Amino acid sequence: MSVIYSKVVSELISAHKDIWNSYTEHSFLEQLANGSLPNAQFLKYLKQDYIFLIHFSRAWALATAKSDSLDEMIITSSIMHSLINEEMALHIRVCEREGINIKDLKSTVETPENIAYTRYVLEAGYSGDFLDLLISLSPCVLGYGQIGLRLKNMFTSQKYKEWIDNYSSPEYQNVCFSVGKLIDEAVSRRIGNNYHKIGKWKILNQYFRKATLLEIEFWEMGLKP
Amino acid sequence: MSVIYSKVVSELISAHKDIWNSYTEHSFLEQLANGSLPNAQFLKYLKQDYIFLIHFSRAWALATAKSDSLDEMIITSSIMHSLINEEMALHIRVCEREGINIKDLKSTVETPENIAYTRYVLEAGYSGDFLDLLISLSPCVLGYGQIGLRLKNMFTSQKYKEWIDNYSSPEYQNVCFSVGKLIDEAVSRRIGNNYHKIGKWKILNQYFRKATLLEIEFWEMGLKP
Amino acid sequence: MSVIYSKVVSELISAHKDIWNSYTEHSFLEQLANGSLPNAQFLKYLKQDYIFLIHFSRAWALATAKSDSLDEMIITSSIMHSLINEEMALHIRVCEREGINIKDLKSTVETPENIAYTRYVLEAGYSGDFLDLLISLSPCVLGYGQIGLRLKNMFTSQKYKEWIDNYSSPEYQNVCFSVGKLIDEAVSRRIGNNYHKIGKWKILNQYFRKATLLEIEFWEMGLKP
Amino acid sequence: MSVIYSKVVSELISAHKDIWNSYTEHSFLEQLANGSLPNAQFLKYLKQDYIFLIHFSRAWALATAKSDSLDEMIITSSIMHSLINEEMALHIRVCEREGINIKDLKSTVETPENIAYTRYVLEAGYSGDFLDLLISLSPCVLGYGQIGLRLKNMFTSQKYKEWIDNYSSPEYQNVCFSVGKLIDEAVSRRIGNNYHKIGKWKILNQYFRKATLLEIEFWEMGLKP
Repeated sequence: MSVIYSKVVSELISAHKDIWNSYTEHSFLEQLANGSLPNAQFLKYLKQDYIFLIHFSRAWALATAKSDSLDEMIITSSIMHSLINEEMALHIRVCEREGINIKDLKSTVETPENIAYTRYVLEAGYSGDFLDLLISLSPCVLGYGQIGLRLKNMFTSQKYKEWIDNYSSPEYQNVCFSVGKLIDEAVSRRIGNNYHKIGKWKILNQYFRKATLLEIEFWEMGLKP
Repeated sequence: MSVIYSKVVSELISAHKDIWNSYTEHSFLEQLANGSLPNAQFLKYLKQDYIFLIHFSRAWALATAKSDSLDEMIITSSIMHSLINEEMALHIRVCEREGINIKDLKSTVETPENIAYTRYVLEAGYSGDFLDLLISLSPCVLGYGQIGLRLKNMFTSQKYKEWIDNYSSPEYQNVCFSVGKLIDEAVSRRIGNNYHKIGKWKILNQYFRKATLLEIEFWEMGLKP
Repeated sequence: MSVIYSKVVSELISAHKDIWNSYTEHSFLEQLANGSLPNAQFLKYLKQDYIFLIHFSRAWALATAKSDSLDEMIITSSIMHSLINEEMALHIRVCEREGINIKDLKSTVETPENIAYTRYVLEAGYSGDFLDLLISLSPCVLGYGQIGLRLKNMFTSQKYKEWIDNYSSPEYQNVCFSVGKLIDEAVSRRIGNNYHKIGKWKILNQYFRKATLLEIEFWEMGLKP
Repeated sequence: MSVIYSKVVSELISAHKDIWNSYTEHSFLEQLANGSLPNAQFLKYLKQDYIFLIHFSRAWALATAKSDSLDEMIITSSIMHSLINEEMALHIRVCEREGINIKDLKSTVETPENIAYTRYVLEAGYSGDFLDLLISLSPCVLGYGQIGLRLKNMFTSQKYKEWIDNYSSPEYQNVCFSVGKLIDEAVSRRIGNNYHKIGKWKILNQYFRKATLLEIEFWEMGLKP
């Protein structure tokens, strides 16, 4: 995949290419692209993703609390703002069209895979610092950007076009570039540019790897009956 | 003072009337109203308050992370948003007019009184729950609303009118009513309406009292040479 | 089951009887009792539980940081102390006997089920208060006590007797009674004795339910190839 | 001063020599050494330090929760253990001899200077990572070790000999060497040995500087009537 949102995250992707591909080219996504994904599975995923977005937004709010400068606070809080106002709107809109109202959405019980991923990221943020949190958030934000572009180029069915359009849209791609820049600058400011041999880099690699693995589990969950 | 932003906070004010009055009727404020406050002291306060606002915004972001519902997330994050975008603008504007540019502002060294108050609130939020955090934030938010209205009624000098106008403005008063409602509902949802005899109420009283005392220290700092 | 370590937790168990029984009478445990559990599964569980204990100990340390009194600090830190010194020793001892040395143990990769449970508890502690954390910890601590006694009464094979002896031992049972007392007093001090109708009780019920569900997932993981 | 507990902290001391000396050679300490410190001031300090120790112990517990390995957990929790069991005992013993019983001690109201320091350290720990927390803790732990040795060499009055003996004792000096080693290894593991030019080092310097300044404020408080 050629889009590069962040120098740092690109290095992490290369270092964990095996699982990164399993995540971004998961069979759930192939089925989205060719329209073979059963509707029930897509709705299951959407409902879980609604709960996911709430915890994910909390994690971005935590990033604001853990920011080191007003600039970092402004970026992280604007991402948080667009998550709870714009990205959630897509979920609510699509669900409503499919006959799932907001009350049903709110009473959805989160799956273990959902708990695993969201609490992993939040706990990384609470126990670690701003970098640990951002790197744990990156597979989701930037992975969805990459997935959006990839599916945009290969989709053969209109069935899930709205979802594909959302993550390949210029708006979402801009969020990815902002987050990528934020990560590169945050890493550079804190641990410089020769970070490859220090322990902190190993720690960041672990956060990236586990978060990516938990993304795979999330797709797996979407395919479960 | 007759304005009541919140039932719960009104009870806390009554229970700690002695120090609440020392805070909201502090001689720093009398001097703001009659214009006798030396410019140097006002600028000292403004510069410290700029740093204060950064940590205070972080505390509101933490409140979003600790929210229990999307509604609480939306309110807390909108307050955080107006703090870093609107309230800070007043500080930057007034400081610039007085010959303090943004670079000077950013290089201000925070005083112990500033550290004490901001870290107290943040730590209350991290160690406690959403209620502990909100109650620790309340003396500042609602106290400034009350102070704004009081000074609006008694000011005899135009010197610090812009500051007084800001906190007595309908916009700021609306923030106070929103925060008051948020607190009342958050308390009611979590510990009901008969909370006066449980330990949690004692804990909340301690947070309120200490935060109020630290507000007094903050004014004292403003008067120090 | 007749042993009652805590009034509060007994109420929670009754309210979630369905999943509590699925947890404490899980087929993993039946197989431990009758010796039919394959050795490989037991070792898989032990290795995961070793990592689990590290995060669980961190959660108890967090409970000390979130304590409200010196008494609470002393109890929570002594539990933490016995976890990393005594309970871990059992794991290391049994693993060594089975040919798994400490280096293997340390290089174990945690499963998603393990991540889900440990991070859930830690995040509950960070985002919530002392009560939220304790209640999230309770299904594990007290559940294992109950399981130990139950298996002690029904085991028909010596194969896993050491494990059963550990959790049915007077030492472990005492830990359960201490934790039970700690919980009852912490609840009583903070939200009194008429807590059944307030929102905080609903929140505590959610923490208890989800933690119990994640315990079931943990056993399921133990049975997976 | 020639004792070196830690390579990293020695560098920090050199970089902040001005305030480090103001802290470790504060007039409160000169008065302890020559016995001119009024008893009332010493008792005021002791009572505040009792509360300080509680929050300081919580900060060490938080360090355990934020540890990256079992080894770090064992060291941090053993320091925490000796703080609440041994160091506190000295305070209680001395206070009792001076007619202040444990009930008085527990009802002491913490001063703003005490709040400032303890919450600063705890918040550094919550918002930052393990390193941020340890460096914020270091001026107290290692500074008291250095102060103990210095006063041991220069004291001219028996009046506060027990206090001086405590911090110059082999037991306390050993704690200092353990903490020093812990810090050096934690820094080396995470940011290597060429950390002087990265932003994280600047952040750690800020934590060290502010914590040292807040130590000075604490002594100042001790001298206030």
